[in-house]
Amino acid sequence: MAKIAVMGYGVVGSGVVEVLHKNHDSIAKKAKEEISVKYILDLRDFPEDPNRDLFIKDFSIIENDPEVEVVVECIGGQNPAYVFVKRSLLAGKNVATSNKELIATRGAELLKTARDKGVNLLFEASVGGGVPIIRPLHQCLAANEVCEIAGIVNGTTNFILSKMKNENMAFDDALKLAQDLGYAEKIDPSADIDGHDSCRKICILSSLAFGSHIYPDMVYTRGIRDITPTDITCAESNNYAVKLIAKTKRLPDGAVSAAVTPALVSHDSQLAGVEDVFNAILVRGDVLGDVVFYGRGAGKLPTASAVVADVIDLVQNRGTYKGLFWNDVDRENFHPFSEENVRCYVRFSGQNPFPDATALGGKLPEGQQAVITPELPFGEVESRLKQAKSQGTQVHNMMPVLNY
Amino acid sequence: MAKIAVMGYGVVGSGVVEVLHKNHDSIAKKAKEEISVKYILDLRDFPEDPNRDLFIKDFSIIENDPEVEVVVECIGGQNPAYVFVKRSLLAGKNVATSNKELIATRGAELLKTARDKGVNLLFEASVGGGVPIIRPLHQCLAANEVCEIAGIVNGTTNFILSKMKNENMAFDDALKLAQDLGYAEKIDPSADIDGHDSCRKICILSSLAFGSHIYPDMVYTRGIRDITPTDITCAESNNYAVKLIAKTKRLPDGAVSAAVTPALVSHDSQLAGVEDVFNAILVRGDVLGDVVFYGRGAGKLPTASAVVADVIDLVQNRGTYKGLFWNDVDRENFHPFSEENVRCYVRFSGQNPFPDATALGGKLPEGQQAVITPELPFGEVESRLKQAKSQGTQVHNMMPVLNY
Repeated sequence: MAKIAVMGYGVVGSGVVEVLHKNHDSIAKKAKEEISVKYILDLRDFPEDPNRDLFIKDFSIIENDPEVEVVVECIGGQNPAYVFVKRSLLAGKNVATSNKELIATRGAELLKTARDKGVNLLFEASVGGGVPIIRPLHQCLAANEVCEIAGIVNGTTNFILSKMKNENMAFDDALKLAQDLGYAEKIDPSADIDGHDSCRKICILSSLAFGSHIYPDMVYTRGIRDITPTDITCAESNNYAVKLIAKTKRLPDGAVSAAVTPALVSHDSQLAGVEDVFNAILVRGDVLGDVVFYGRGAGKLPTASAVVADVIDLVQNRGTYKGLFWNDVDRENFHPFSEENVRCYVRFSGQNPFPDATALGGKLPEGQQAVITPELPFGEVESRLKQAKSQGTQVHNMMPVLNY
Repeated sequence: MAKIAVMGYGVVGSGVVEVLHKNHDSIAKKAKEEISVKYILDLRDFPEDPNRDLFIKDFSIIENDPEVEVVVECIGGQNPAYVFVKRSLLAGKNVATSNKELIATRGAELLKTARDKGVNLLFEASVGGGVPIIRPLHQCLAANEVCEIAGIVNGTTNFILSKMKNENMAFDDALKLAQDLGYAEKIDPSADIDGHDSCRKICILSSLAFGSHIYPDMVYTRGIRDITPTDITCAESNNYAVKLIAKTKRLPDGAVSAAVTPALVSHDSQLAGVEDVFNAILVRGDVLGDVVFYGRGAGKLPTASAVVADVIDLVQNRGTYKGLFWNDVDRENFHPFSEENVRCYVRFSGQNPFPDATALGGKLPEGQQAVITPELPFGEVESRLKQAKSQGTQVHNMMPVLNY
């Protein structure tokens, strides 16, 4: 019998308890022993909950109970999650977490603590919800040097872009629909809309794939607020989809570059057809070529099932250090996105700032043109557009064209 | 330093040696020690090969060398692969194999031998080539009860169907092109074309997901020889793709049913857009919903990279039994496909054998009609068609319509 503690009884935490209960027998078979929840830590009271006897409010009970070998963190955010995870690891306990903010901002430090104590810190649910990506990247693709990762890792923005495309909705209307459906936060949806959630996830994937921590503030991050139905229609009529892409890449000089940006993606790409709240993550390996992992990126039970898969792994392997680890940041080997060579979609009125660009077809508002530039450092595209604006060209929008 | 032996120096075996060499440093880092090939077993001579000093022709050298803890089997086919793998396991060695025929026909027995000896038998490369599926199914989706698996698991037939669709080629012409490009066997392409390869793969996936071995002779297996451009055009104009689907499912009564069959799949499905030699495998879990794994299903280096990922895992975990296991066949809990309820596409001339079917639109040859039947046991569709034929209806083609 393995005893675990669940910290945080919100959407994911209560889902973890539910999945452990629902699939109790098959999980016990896979873990080769029963898994039982000994404590649930939450500051709130749940007097009607069937698990009400398990609730505690004092973390030190978990910390000091040697029977608890696995701790599940579903509190979210930085604190107190950070303190509780750190202290759990220092107490020699294995930890599974769904907390992307925690791993994106403190991953290197916490993984080092885990290694020093010979325990494991797993976080499959932090990226892709229920879509397996952390373990495949760490284990299944181990024979590959990963060259590049690109993903649609935020379901809310993908839902909004899908509605804008399929129903010709304006951004604000699609956002309101997403809020009404509970996909986007009502009060402040900016974590999704402005790309911060995607940024945290690509930080985690990049750190794991390339071995050095990338922090969110290092990553060029742009959301989808300024995407219009005009851009989407223009892209579609030229055989491109507009998607919010989180990407990381090893450049020819060995340095890493990462970005979150709306982008044009060819309809031939496996990423173009990902609609609604679904996620898809493409991993490009030197040996393997492209592999894509696709599925429902969020939701209570999918995310909980990823956490429980980690719990099963931790129970099965307690006593064995699994080697999931990356070093702290290596700023010398990180290049800003402005130095990466990309082609860009530009929609403008007035003089064409890129005389060598390829014109796009399709209907555009009176007086507007759309082009795709040749491959240029992204920073150069930005500065040429700035210059063109100062000379009277109206730039309506621009975004990279990415090849996946 | 971990010493391994590679048996079989064909496409995959030589690829394994190449990948171990090419990514030597990063692989050593992941395995936490160097991996070195001590022997290569092949009956042929390779006097010009840079590894020529490693070649041996006598298996017992590997069997009796205690330094070899991991054996890689890339011989293919049943014998001598079976004997060598069995003896390797009995000698207490861990084994990685790419041999789908071996696992589909002897998996339960060999996994039991491995368990008895406390060693691991891994076979990630046997399904999906480089696309990770065995390990995700076993580990990442461990919190789920898998309900259903459906995949495009044979690149050759998918290439042929893609050519028939995109270039309106007849089956024979598309097959010839596949042979010229080296995707299909020149002398006897039937393992691919008639669905046997897909059948072996679904046997492996079904056995792993549901815990009881399914043997190839239990599975309804139909290939793509009788698919015509007319069927594909008709399907496409009604928003369906024609795909060779290998599927397995737990039925409401708990029994398992499996089949390999060409089928109509809605354009909305993630399986419909899989083109060319690519593979995609959809796993439907009770908790997680649908997850799709997509990538290049064959090819020397992708397949080799999957084998090498297994080798890294075996080296890291030698001494730990990983619990990859299924029981032998449970025929009482296996239902033939004829009992499974499906809707079917039927193209015919003459009287409609399914008056309650839905007519399909689109252009068909003079006098022909196409319909989709209501949900019926597949065997009943077959027998109604037989009866209709005896009464003068010409049945041009039929296949299931599957919902993924």
